[in-house]
Amino acid sequence: MEYIISDKVKTLKPSAIREIFKYAADPTVVSLSAGNPAPEAFPTEAIAEISAKILKENPIGALQYGVTEGYPPLRNAVAEYMKNKYNVGSDKDDLIITSGAQQVMDLFTKTTCNEGDTVICEAPSFIGSLNSFRSYNCRLCGVPVESDGMNLEALEDALKTEKNVRFIYIIANFQNPSGITTSFAKRKAIYELAKKYNTMIIEDNPYGELRISGEDVPCIKSLDTDGRVVYAGSFSKVLSPGMRLGFAIAPKPVIQKMVVCKQGEDVHTNSWAQMVAHAFMTEYDYEAHLKGLREIYRKKANFCMELLDKYLVPNGITYQRIEGGLFIWCKLPENAKITMNEFCKQAVLNKVCVVPGNAFLTDETEQCSSFRINFSTPTDEQLEKGIKILGKLAAEVL
Amino acid sequence: MEYIISDKVKTLKPSAIREIFKYAADPTVVSLSAGNPAPEAFPTEAIAEISAKILKENPIGALQYGVTEGYPPLRNAVAEYMKNKYNVGSDKDDLIITSGAQQVMDLFTKTTCNEGDTVICEAPSFIGSLNSFRSYNCRLCGVPVESDGMNLEALEDALKTEKNVRFIYIIANFQNPSGITTSFAKRKAIYELAKKYNTMIIEDNPYGELRISGEDVPCIKSLDTDGRVVYAGSFSKVLSPGMRLGFAIAPKPVIQKMVVCKQGEDVHTNSWAQMVAHAFMTEYDYEAHLKGLREIYRKKANFCMELLDKYLVPNGITYQRIEGGLFIWCKLPENAKITMNEFCKQAVLNKVCVVPGNAFLTDETEQCSSFRINFSTPTDEQLEKGIKILGKLAAEVL
Repeated sequence: MEYIISDKVKTLKPSAIREIFKYAADPTVVSLSAGNPAPEAFPTEAIAEISAKILKENPIGALQYGVTEGYPPLRNAVAEYMKNKYNVGSDKDDLIITSGAQQVMDLFTKTTCNEGDTVICEAPSFIGSLNSFRSYNCRLCGVPVESDGMNLEALEDALKTEKNVRFIYIIANFQNPSGITTSFAKRKAIYELAKKYNTMIIEDNPYGELRISGEDVPCIKSLDTDGRVVYAGSFSKVLSPGMRLGFAIAPKPVIQKMVVCKQGEDVHTNSWAQMVAHAFMTEYDYEAHLKGLREIYRKKANFCMELLDKYLVPNGITYQRIEGGLFIWCKLPENAKITMNEFCKQAVLNKVCVVPGNAFLTDETEQCSSFRINFSTPTDEQLEKGIKILGKLAAEVL
Repeated sequence: MEYIISDKVKTLKPSAIREIFKYAADPTVVSLSAGNPAPEAFPTEAIAEISAKILKENPIGALQYGVTEGYPPLRNAVAEYMKNKYNVGSDKDDLIITSGAQQVMDLFTKTTCNEGDTVICEAPSFIGSLNSFRSYNCRLCGVPVESDGMNLEALEDALKTEKNVRFIYIIANFQNPSGITTSFAKRKAIYELAKKYNTMIIEDNPYGELRISGEDVPCIKSLDTDGRVVYAGSFSKVLSPGMRLGFAIAPKPVIQKMVVCKQGEDVHTNSWAQMVAHAFMTEYDYEAHLKGLREIYRKKANFCMELLDKYLVPNGITYQRIEGGLFIWCKLPENAKITMNEFCKQAVLNKVCVVPGNAFLTDETEQCSSFRINFSTPTDEQLEKGIKILGKLAAEVL
């Protein structure tokens, strides 16, 4: 029979990255395309220990229905942590635990957007979020990012000319995929523009704890005197993505509606994961764990940038140096003899997989001369092998 | 500031049951209003054992990102189980693991419904699902249920007169809240009507394994030669609701779109829960566990029905005998001196909490003379105490 598909879902495609993952599944291919945390970054022993304790001492708590807002001790621990460390959250805000930060995008878009409403995002930006906005038939308007954040003229122009702009979506720290960090000056300017044009902001901060150099820049949410910022946090990069644990800190009326939406979506987030995260944050040395993570990623990122300097830069491929996160954004030279897409295809044929940059654009058919590599998933050997191959290919075809 | 709320979410209210839960939180109140599985029904020791094994032998598998469709061994185990035991699923179908069966409602509604499209459901029906349909601005059309399922004339009338009917929502076994089971004759008739009017069916079967008497009735999905039935299954009542684990078996093109929607919603379901469920289904004696569950619920249900016969029936309150599930639907006498809502309020003042029946209607303001009680959550002592109080109240006020 013929299936009726809603207007909003009809044009949705599986993320382009997923297609690439098919190649990456070939064990002879070096995958620099994933976004998985490094396996050695998981505190597996602590999680096993906590889990055993919970299932022994309070199995019913972990197995029975919970409340939609989230496990109260975890909500409190996260709220306190975010307030003390980042000055995020006020008494006008509330906090909801979500099934990954991805669900924050979903719940907030559902709460605030009618079909056809506009979402302004960085160009390029994280595909998962863009697809979430698309799944509610939002119009996406991309604002080009520079090395210190969105181009402010282009942002103001978008705010001025686009109709029904419901929010600006921004990954201010170590953006996926561009790797850039929005400067404090631009964070303030973006907040002021949101105020001037009376729109909201989702500040998505999955990588914030993974800074490897430089100083922390205050969150946009810490500037939020009006209650126009929804802060999305994640445990995926600091604890485990398989647990599917995230949270939103947002104005109470917004959280209230997000809770009602979540009730109809998945009732509540897995209780075991919430209890494990709570114990890990409060009974273990969480700061020492984060310090260890930064050490792991600092080593990996610096090693990767050394390889890029050695193999790609001499062949005309430039890249944006990063201060944290999991990704590096590489750019083909202006006079390249083949397109970026062709280069990525050739790379796969040579057994290295990267993500073509146009996958991160609001319009995937747009031209783009960049590609994204990830350094957290591959081993050092894979990283060296993969980047060497890319360098050899660049020397041959660019 | 003033928050813009989308049309679909604007009128959504937290489930009426949640309001009642506030009273139920009072430890002096006997709650017959929840829908929690009996705590003694959880295989806590097996889960602790499996969990420890997984976190020791394959921690990265449990903690790393997984695929949106679900943990492949669990998908295979569930597909095989459903095919062998219930003849559910064909080679035209596929299976997705969801974050509870609630997410099946959400994903399928999102996939198929534009705002204003119609969903036909039983009246009364499960609030969680109705709210999920409402959250996409669907028009709900309720078809009264009789002791053997929906009234077929009313169903055909609805199919004939309603515009853009996207699907019929049905809980065919031990329906929540009415407790009735749809007869095989009616299941066939409902499928034929869906065919005649070319619409789909969601068959929601959370309680199917909890039959305490009588014979299993074949699932509607087992009759599905056209590919018009989406089967929603759940681990909440057979393993643990806190794990948030459900699944859908549906035609491939439908699952494909649901997968894309799930990617934007929560990426994938908690991996630990999926691995635990898989090991429990395949390495333990799953059938013996289910048999044990039925024994627990048979005792509790029969005890509850005895109490109703003893305390409520003599005072004019009738009820629908059940063959399974967790709920019993009680009806005030026609000549009652007070309304059902007033009776439920009085019950709370007397420290017993039940759910007013109108909460389960597509229009909550409609008159209703029934209320729902749950027997799985309270202890036998609480059950007896609560029903005694209801009987005394009925004698006084009806």
